Amino acid sequence: MSINAFGHLFRVTTWGESHGDAIGATIDGCPSNISLDAEDLQVWLDKRKPGTSKYTTQRRENDEVEILSGVFDGKTTGTPIQLLIKNVDQRSKDYSDIKEKFRPGHADITYYLKYGNRDYRGGGRSSARETAARVAAGGVARAALKMLLPDLKITGYMLQMGKHRIDRDSIDLGVIEKNPFWAPSQSGAKKFASYLDELRKSGNSVGAIIEITASGVPAGLGAPIYAKLDTDIAAGMMSINAVKGVEIGEGMSAAMLTGSANADEIILGNYGLEYKTNNAGGILGGISNGADIVCRFAVKPTSSILTSRQTITKSGDSTEIVTKGRHDPCVGIRAVPVGEAMLACILLDHFLLHRGQQGKNHGSIG
Amino acid sequence: MSINAFGHLFRVTTWGESHGDAIGATIDGCPSNISLDAEDLQVWLDKRKPGTSKYTTQRRENDEVEILSGVFDGKTTGTPIQLLIKNVDQRSKDYSDIKEKFRPGHADITYYLKYGNRDYRGGGRSSARETAARVAAGGVARAALKMLLPDLKITGYMLQMGKHRIDRDSIDLGVIEKNPFWAPSQSGAKKFASYLDELRKSGNSVGAIIEITASGVPAGLGAPIYAKLDTDIAAGMMSINAVKGVEIGEGMSAAMLTGSANADEIILGNYGLEYKTNNAGGILGGISNGADIVCRFAVKPTSSILTSRQTITKSGDSTEIVTKGRHDPCVGIRAVPVGEAMLACILLDHFLLHRGQQGKNHGSIG
Amino acid sequence: MSINAFGHLFRVTTWGESHGDAIGATIDGCPSNISLDAEDLQVWLDKRKPGTSKYTTQRRENDEVEILSGVFDGKTTGTPIQLLIKNVDQRSKDYSDIKEKFRPGHADITYYLKYGNRDYRGGGRSSARETAARVAAGGVARAALKMLLPDLKITGYMLQMGKHRIDRDSIDLGVIEKNPFWAPSQSGAKKFASYLDELRKSGNSVGAIIEITASGVPAGLGAPIYAKLDTDIAAGMMSINAVKGVEIGEGMSAAMLTGSANADEIILGNYGLEYKTNNAGGILGGISNGADIVCRFAVKPTSSILTSRQTITKSGDSTEIVTKGRHDPCVGIRAVPVGEAMLACILLDHFLLHRGQQGKNHGSIG
Amino acid sequence: MSINAFGHLFRVTTWGESHGDAIGATIDGCPSNISLDAEDLQVWLDKRKPGTSKYTTQRRENDEVEILSGVFDGKTTGTPIQLLIKNVDQRSKDYSDIKEKFRPGHADITYYLKYGNRDYRGGGRSSARETAARVAAGGVARAALKMLLPDLKITGYMLQMGKHRIDRDSIDLGVIEKNPFWAPSQSGAKKFASYLDELRKSGNSVGAIIEITASGVPAGLGAPIYAKLDTDIAAGMMSINAVKGVEIGEGMSAAMLTGSANADEIILGNYGLEYKTNNAGGILGGISNGADIVCRFAVKPTSSILTSRQTITKSGDSTEIVTKGRHDPCVGIRAVPVGEAMLACILLDHFLLHRGQQGKNHGSIG
Repeated sequence: MSINAFGHLFRVTTWGESHGDAIGATIDGCPSNISLDAEDLQVWLDKRKPGTSKYTTQRRENDEVEILSGVFDGKTTGTPIQLLIKNVDQRSKDYSDIKEKFRPGHADITYYLKYGNRDYRGGGRSSARETAARVAAGGVARAALKMLLPDLKITGYMLQMGKHRIDRDSIDLGVIEKNPFWAPSQSGAKKFASYLDELRKSGNSVGAIIEITASGVPAGLGAPIYAKLDTDIAAGMMSINAVKGVEIGEGMSAAMLTGSANADEIILGNYGLEYKTNNAGGILGGISNGADIVCRFAVKPTSSILTSRQTITKSGDSTEIVTKGRHDPCVGIRAVPVGEAMLACILLDHFLLHRGQQGKNHGSIG
Repeated sequence: MSINAFGHLFRVTTWGESHGDAIGATIDGCPSNISLDAEDLQVWLDKRKPGTSKYTTQRRENDEVEILSGVFDGKTTGTPIQLLIKNVDQRSKDYSDIKEKFRPGHADITYYLKYGNRDYRGGGRSSARETAARVAAGGVARAALKMLLPDLKITGYMLQMGKHRIDRDSIDLGVIEKNPFWAPSQSGAKKFASYLDELRKSGNSVGAIIEITASGVPAGLGAPIYAKLDTDIAAGMMSINAVKGVEIGEGMSAAMLTGSANADEIILGNYGLEYKTNNAGGILGGISNGADIVCRFAVKPTSSILTSRQTITKSGDSTEIVTKGRHDPCVGIRAVPVGEAMLACILLDHFLLHRGQQGKNHGSIG
Repeated sequence: MSINAFGHLFRVTTWGESHGDAIGATIDGCPSNISLDAEDLQVWLDKRKPGTSKYTTQRRENDEVEILSGVFDGKTTGTPIQLLIKNVDQRSKDYSDIKEKFRPGHADITYYLKYGNRDYRGGGRSSARETAARVAAGGVARAALKMLLPDLKITGYMLQMGKHRIDRDSIDLGVIEKNPFWAPSQSGAKKFASYLDELRKSGNSVGAIIEITASGVPAGLGAPIYAKLDTDIAAGMMSINAVKGVEIGEGMSAAMLTGSANADEIILGNYGLEYKTNNAGGILGGISNGADIVCRFAVKPTSSILTSRQTITKSGDSTEIVTKGRHDPCVGIRAVPVGEAMLACILLDHFLLHRGQQGKNHGSIG
Repeated sequence: MSINAFGHLFRVTTWGESHGDAIGATIDGCPSNISLDAEDLQVWLDKRKPGTSKYTTQRRENDEVEILSGVFDGKTTGTPIQLLIKNVDQRSKDYSDIKEKFRPGHADITYYLKYGNRDYRGGGRSSARETAARVAAGGVARAALKMLLPDLKITGYMLQMGKHRIDRDSIDLGVIEKNPFWAPSQSGAKKFASYLDELRKSGNSVGAIIEITASGVPAGLGAPIYAKLDTDIAAGMMSINAVKGVEIGEGMSAAMLTGSANADEIILGNYGLEYKTNNAGGILGGISNGADIVCRFAVKPTSSILTSRQTITKSGDSTEIVTKGRHDPCVGIRAVPVGEAMLACILLDHFLLHRGQQGKNHGSIG
C-alpha cells in the first residue's frame, strides 16, 4: 500500500528531492549474511552518474552512497538497510525564472494541482535524480542475487533512440560498455551520437527504447494473475520517471502474430528444457519458464528544453517557456542502469516470494 | 502483498478455475451507500460472455452473477462484497488427450513446474474465464464511480487485429457496439471479420491491440514514483491473461518523438485547463492532468490452436500437440470489456486514495 | 492494506454477514500440494458450531463448508481457495423490534455512524458468526502446517469465566474436550457451568479469558520491530469480535516482575536449547525462541442481553432496550476454536515469511 | 507486507541500530501543506531522550532530528519524509565481554538464530533506541492531526510500576509533566521513586504499565474485522520493544464483567452522543464511538541487568552473565512518549483511511 515503495518481501522505499539535502532508499526484507559494502553499490551508481559524457546533464554529482544501517562487519544483518546519497551540486538558481510557469510535458502542473506546492528548484521527486536511489537499491539486490542465484546475469542496453533502432541481428553485447549510450552496436552508437549532437545543439531532446534481459532465471518465479512476474516488471518499469510503455517478449508486436507463429515450441536440449523461440520473453501465465527474461520500455524525451513552448502561469495567464537549467538531451541513456536495477530488485523479490510460498519448484520433467 | 489481489483501498481478489465449480471476486473497501444489484453487474458480464458470435469460443456460459455479501436493501454496506459466478458448461473431456503434453505458448508448463500439479481440464487460473470475475468487480467500481465521479466515461475498443490497424482519423466511437469486435470503425470491423474468418478456418489464432480511454477524470489522481496512476494501469493491464505490452499516451512511440513534439502545450480554455495535444495520455509524473486517460495493451494470440506444434510430455518425451477444445480465435475481442473493468477499478481506487491522503486537490490555477 | 484481510504470504479475507446468504473466506498464498478436502475443515467448524450445548446460542447452523476453488484432485493447487458456508437458520424477525434502537456495548451504533446503514437483522459483520470463516481458514492453515511443521501442536482452552479463574497448577489438558467450555480442569468446568446457568437464567452474559498455546514452534519465526510474531498475534486476536485485551507470556503481569525474575534462564537440555521458565511466552524481540508460544485474550460479555439498558434511537430519542434473539451467554466459549484458528494462520504465515526471507535459520549453537 | 513498517496510508518505516551511525524513519503518505520543521519533532524527542534523570540510562544522546526530504518552505510536500537522528554516544566497548553469551530475556538469541549474526554492540534493532524514530514519526503525525483534527488530545502516563498501581480515583493529569515518571499522581510518583531507587542500587530492573488516552476522536474511525482500530492499536503497541500485553478499555478485566455491567449506556448530552461509562475504551466493533480512546500496555523489565543469570554461549557452553553497559532500570518510563507517538500515527492513519473510503460519516442521529 505504501505509495513510494515497491516489492513484496524485498521492499524498497525511495525518498528525497532533486534539490533537497539528500536522496536515498530504505530497503526492508533483505536476507541476512549477504556480503555488502558501499563499494558494491558505487560501481552501479557510477554507471548512472550524470556528467560523464556530453550526452548527459552537466550537473556534477559524485553520487557517493553511504550505508547507514542494516550492515554489520561487512554483511547484511537482515534488518532495514538505509542508503543515503547527498546532493552536492543542486544549482537551484537556474530554475528561478520558471517558478510561476508550468513546463509542458512535465509533472510540474500535476504536482502543483494535487499537492498545492511546487518545488520549483528542479522537479522534486519527478526528477531523474530519484533514480539514483533505485540504482543503489538494485546494487543491494544484485549482491543478494549473487549468492542466491549465481547464474543470473542482467544486461541492459539502448535499442532505439528517436527513429534509429538497432537491428536485432547486429546486436553485439560486447560493445555495450564501450560507448556512452550503452548501445549494443558500434555503428548504432555512432548514429546515436551524430543524431544527438544535432538535437542537443538545437536545444531539443529525444526519447529512447531500452531493453533489459536476464539469463539464468530459474523457472517458477511469479504467480498467476495479479502479482505475475510480468505484472511486477510492467509496474516497476512504468514507475521509472518518463517511461510511457512496457513490453515483455514480443510486446506490442504480439498483436501481429498468429497463434502458430507465437507459440514457442518446447524441446529437451542438452541442459534441459528449451524453447525454439522466445516470443514469450521468458514468462508464461505470469511465471518464468526458464528462458531469458526480455523486457523493453520507452522513455519519453526530456520536457525541460531550450525550445520555446506555449504554457500558462499559476495565475492562469498564457505565456511562453524555455527551460535553461542542465538537462539530459536523452534521459534514456541513464535509464539503462535504472532498468537493470529495477529488474534485479524484482527478480530477487520474486525469488524470495517463491521460496516463501513453495520452498522450491514442485514439478519436474522427465 | 496478496498475490491474487489488486488495488489499495478498493481491493479486488479473484478466485476460481476455468473448470471448477465457480469463479468469483471478493471486493474489500467499497464505499457504503452505493446503489447496487446483480443487474448492474450483469450488463457488463453480458458484453464479455463467450458464445455471442462465431468469433468467440463456443463454450456456453450464462455468467450469471450472485452478490453474496456486502449489499443490503439495494445498497453497499461498506463491508466485503462477494461475487459468485457458477461454471455451467465446463466440458472437460475435451482436454483429456492433452493431459500429459504441454501447450507451447501456454501457462501449462510454468504452472506445472512451480506448483507440481496440473489442472488439465482447461488452464485453471490461466484461462480467460478468470476475467469474468474482473468484469463483475469492474461493475461494482462503475456503480461507485457513477456517484463519486458522475462525469467519468470509460470507453474501450479494438484498435488492431493482426496487422490490420484502424487509422486514428477514421475512429468513430458510435459504431463500437454495432460490430462483434468492439471496433471503432465499420470498415475496420469488416476487415477484422474476413481476416478472422480465414484464420479460424485454418485452425489458427491471432493477437490484437485494445485501447481504453477515460474522459472526465479529475486532475490529481495518482502519486509520484511507485504507485503512480500509470504504474497501476500498467500493472492492471499486464495482469490480464495474454497481455504482453502496455502503453500510456504515445507509449512505445514516445521514443521517436523530440522534446518539442512531445510536450503537450497548456492553455486555459472555456472550461479550464486544456492541452493542445495529449501525448501524455492524461498522466504526468504519475498523476492525472485532467486530459483523457489513454492506454493500450497488446493481447497475444490464443495458444490453444488446431495447428500442430512441437512440444514435450511430462515424462520428457518429444511429441506434437493439437488443441481441440473450444477456444477464441482472437481472445483480444473479449479483452475489451476486461480492460474497461480494470480501468474502472484503478480509477476508483485512486480516487479513494487521493481523497484519503489529500481530501481534495490543494492547488488551483488562476 | 486490505481492510478485511490478515496475513502476509498466507492471506485470508473473510466476507459475509450474519443474516445474509452465506459467509466465507478467500485464502491466497497457500502452498501447493497440501492434501485438503472439506472434511479436514469440517472437524474444526464442528467445534465452533452454535447450538451444541445449552451454553451457546440456540441458532442452528450446520456450518457445512464447501471448497469452491484452489483444490484439485484432493490437493491444493497453489491458487486462491474459496470457502463458502451457507447461512441456514437466519431467523431475522427476532431483530425487528430493535431496528431503530442501538444496543449499548454493541457495534450497531458505530457501523451506523460510519456507513449510514444498518443491517438490523443481526449485527452483520460484527456478529460472532463471522468467526466461522476464520475457523475454516484455520483448518486450511492446519493442513499445511501438518506437512510443513509436523511437530507443531496448537491447544486452546478457557482459563477464566467471570471471576472464576482456573489455577495454573490444576490445568489438565486431557479434559479440554470433555466439557462444553473447553476448560482444562473438570472442577473448573463445573464452576463455569453453575455460574453460567445462573447468569443465563437472569438474562445476563459474562466475559472470559482464553489461552492458546503452541508447542513445536521452531525458533526464528518473526521479525524485529513491526511484523514481530507477537505483533501479529496481538493483531490477530484483537481482530476477533469482542476481544478487549491480548497477552503474550506473562502479559500484563510482566509489569510486576523484576528483571531477574523475568529473565528466562537458558540451558542446553537433552533436546537442545531450553529455558528454565517461559515468561516470554516463546517470543523474544518479536522472534520465536523455540519455547511454547503462550498467548491469552479476554472476550467481553455479549451485549445482546435480556436485561433492560438505557439507549437512544436513530432519531435521537431516549429509550430502553432488551435484546431477545438467540445469543451466547458467554461468547468466549466458542472463541476457543477461533483463537486456535488464528494462531494456526499466523504461524503458517510466519513460517512462509521466514522461509522466504531467510530460507532457513542462519545461526546455530554449539 | 513491509516487515519494518506500520500504517496503511500514513506509513512509517523505521531503520537503524542502537550502535550504528544513525537511526531514522521514512514516512510515506503524509498529506501536503502541513506546517512542519525540525523543532516540531524535537519537543517530543526531548521527552523520550535518555539521560534526563537518574531513572533512565546514562547514555547521552541529543537525539537531534534532521528532516532530509518531503518538506519545502516549512510545509510538507506530500512526498516521503526522511527523518535522521545521528547516534553520538554509542560506547560499544561496554558490550565486548558479552559478545559470546546470550542475555536471558533478551532478543540476542533469537536474532542470532534467525539471522546468523549478532550486533553485540548493543541489541541492534531490539534496543529501546529504535523508539526514538517512532517518536519523531509521531511528531509528524501530530503536526498533521493539529490541522485535520484540532480537538484531538493524546495523553500518556505511567499507571503502574512493579506492584505499585496508581488508583484510578487519584489520577491528576496536571502533574504528569512534573515528575520523571510521567505519573499522573504526585504520591504515586514518590512511591515509584523510592521503589526504583532501591531496585537500581541492587542492579535489578522492573516492568510497568502505561496508559494512553485520546480525547476528541470523531466516531467512525476504523473498520469491521481485520483492520479494526483496536487491532491496529494492539499491533502498534505490541510492536514496541518489551511490550507483552495490550488492553483496550476494560481490557483483560472485561472477562470479569457481566453483560449488563459492561454495556456502556447511551444518552444524548448537551454536545451530542454520550456514554454513561467507557468500558469499551472508545471502540465498538473496531470503530471509534466518539468516547475517549483508552489503551494500556505492559512493558517487561529490562533484561540487561547487573544481577547474575544462567545462560549459554554461542558454542553451547553453560555460563553466567552480568550485563554492565548503561541501561534503564525501568524502560517503561521512556515508553510513555513512545506510546503517545504510536497512537498519534494510528489515529492519523485511520482518519485518512476513513476519509478515503467514506469521505465522511454517512450516518447521523436525530
